[in-house]
Amino acid sequence: MPGPSDPRERPIAVFDSGVGGLTVLHELLVQLPRESFVYFGDTARFPYGERSRDELERFAMEVAEELLARGAKLLVVACNSATAAALPALRARMLQTTLGVDVLGVVRPEAAQAVTATRNGRIGLLATPATIASGAYGEAVHAVDPYVDLVAVAAPGLATLIQSDRPLDERLVDEVRRHVAPLREAGVDTVILGCTHYPLIRPLLQRMLGRDVAIVTSGAALARQVEHALDSRGLASARADGEGDYRFLCSGDAESFRALATRFLQLPLGPVERVTTRTEAVA
Amino acid sequence: MPGPSDPRERPIAVFDSGVGGLTVLHELLVQLPRESFVYFGDTARFPYGERSRDELERFAMEVAEELLARGAKLLVVACNSATAAALPALRARMLQTTLGVDVLGVVRPEAAQAVTATRNGRIGLLATPATIASGAYGEAVHAVDPYVDLVAVAAPGLATLIQSDRPLDERLVDEVRRHVAPLREAGVDTVILGCTHYPLIRPLLQRMLGRDVAIVTSGAALARQVEHALDSRGLASARADGEGDYRFLCSGDAESFRALATRFLQLPLGPVERVTTRTEAVA
Repeated sequence: MPGPSDPRERPIAVFDSGVGGLTVLHELLVQLPRESFVYFGDTARFPYGERSRDELERFAMEVAEELLARGAKLLVVACNSATAAALPALRARMLQTTLGVDVLGVVRPEAAQAVTATRNGRIGLLATPATIASGAYGEAVHAVDPYVDLVAVAAPGLATLIQSDRPLDERLVDEVRRHVAPLREAGVDTVILGCTHYPLIRPLLQRMLGRDVAIVTSGAALARQVEHALDSRGLASARADGEGDYRFLCSGDAESFRALATRFLQLPLGPVERVTTRTEAVA
Repeated sequence: MPGPSDPRERPIAVFDSGVGGLTVLHELLVQLPRESFVYFGDTARFPYGERSRDELERFAMEVAEELLARGAKLLVVACNSATAAALPALRARMLQTTLGVDVLGVVRPEAAQAVTATRNGRIGLLATPATIASGAYGEAVHAVDPYVDLVAVAAPGLATLIQSDRPLDERLVDEVRRHVAPLREAGVDTVILGCTHYPLIRPLLQRMLGRDVAIVTSGAALARQVEHALDSRGLASARADGEGDYRFLCSGDAESFRALATRFLQLPLGPVERVTTRTEAVA
């Protein structure tokens, strides 16, 4: 399945460790309706948070090859852990392929958007402990503006709570309130959601932060960058009308993926296909 | 339960024929986090679409009295049918009460926002056949700017489809695509969602309309007006920190309400209490 012969009509590939990246795909589908997409959720090896850099590089290469084989014209890594661990290696490798496929990750587009959005120079970051420990957002924010304060709040377990069956309960409210408190105390006027699960509780966060605080998500920030990347290479879809198609691959059970995916995508789900990964799944 | 003695800390009442108005409450909760709310869903007498003006005036008066008894400081009618049929009478009656409670409806705030948003003077309206037949949006839009074109598309059954158990399927996509087509052909740059159910499919609509088309919803437009109404009467909450509370009344089964409500509210649900209406429910 090498995809359409016109390279512009080939799909954009989006890769994540599970269903979280679907909030990124959601934004891409809304912002770039003419494009087609293929999404890979590496659900058999989820979560990536505790994996070593070597492991994540290997996983990322493997998934990328699967997506190249599906004719991807651009690869989006919608996973914080994979972006932090594997983006440079993956990017170098993919640009060497015959097609010269570019790879975009989360973190940098968000950092740039947050620096642009802040008025008082105080940016909050809500993310998993692993993402905060990686220091990736701090580096990315300070690469754009070294004088901005970044107030990082680790939210262990929040993504799991959001992914649970009945997420919108009092337990979640208390949990979120606890994480929001230091951001409010610090007087941040912009908050980066540094985990792809968090856009699902954006209304709750906005209510607790107040409407004057700008919330920056991976998806919205990436959509703009994807568009620029396609334009600069003459790879934007030339489709005149209607929407592109989108489909889903996962390494774990397709039905479990389907059950969660609609809530994360907030759009109708397309076909879901299970793909076997070479590297064995580790429990 | 007359509410707190400080009139500023009394709740804002939001009234709808069912769960649709929860998308309006959603916006109010996000935009006005300090305020408290009490929501009334007249689920026992849902839907209002085919009711006579007399009937709707009677229902609205009855619900309004129930909400006044709960200490409401402002009444928001988050229902197109009730707004069109009963707003003037309800407003006159409520302003005569001891507290002089003001009543705001949907339609007008949206119309004003759409006229402000459009650049090419062509505004689309997506609504139920009954709402379009009422002519309320046309009147409201042309009261602000008589030179704007309003392209109205009736979507019979769309609200029911959205309220169904598995809304995001191909049937919905086809249905929405059919309604979006005439809006695209007319070249509108702004679309009013004239039914409180429609914000739940906003991503799908935005994807089909294209991201350059502004979508105007009741909730966002109303939130601003509610704020002005409270400010002008010195009734805005003086709460310094934290969020107000919110709770729910319904005339039908509380469990059925609860099952649907979280999806429409997109925030954690508070307590739900069943209230018996005087006027008998009609099947």
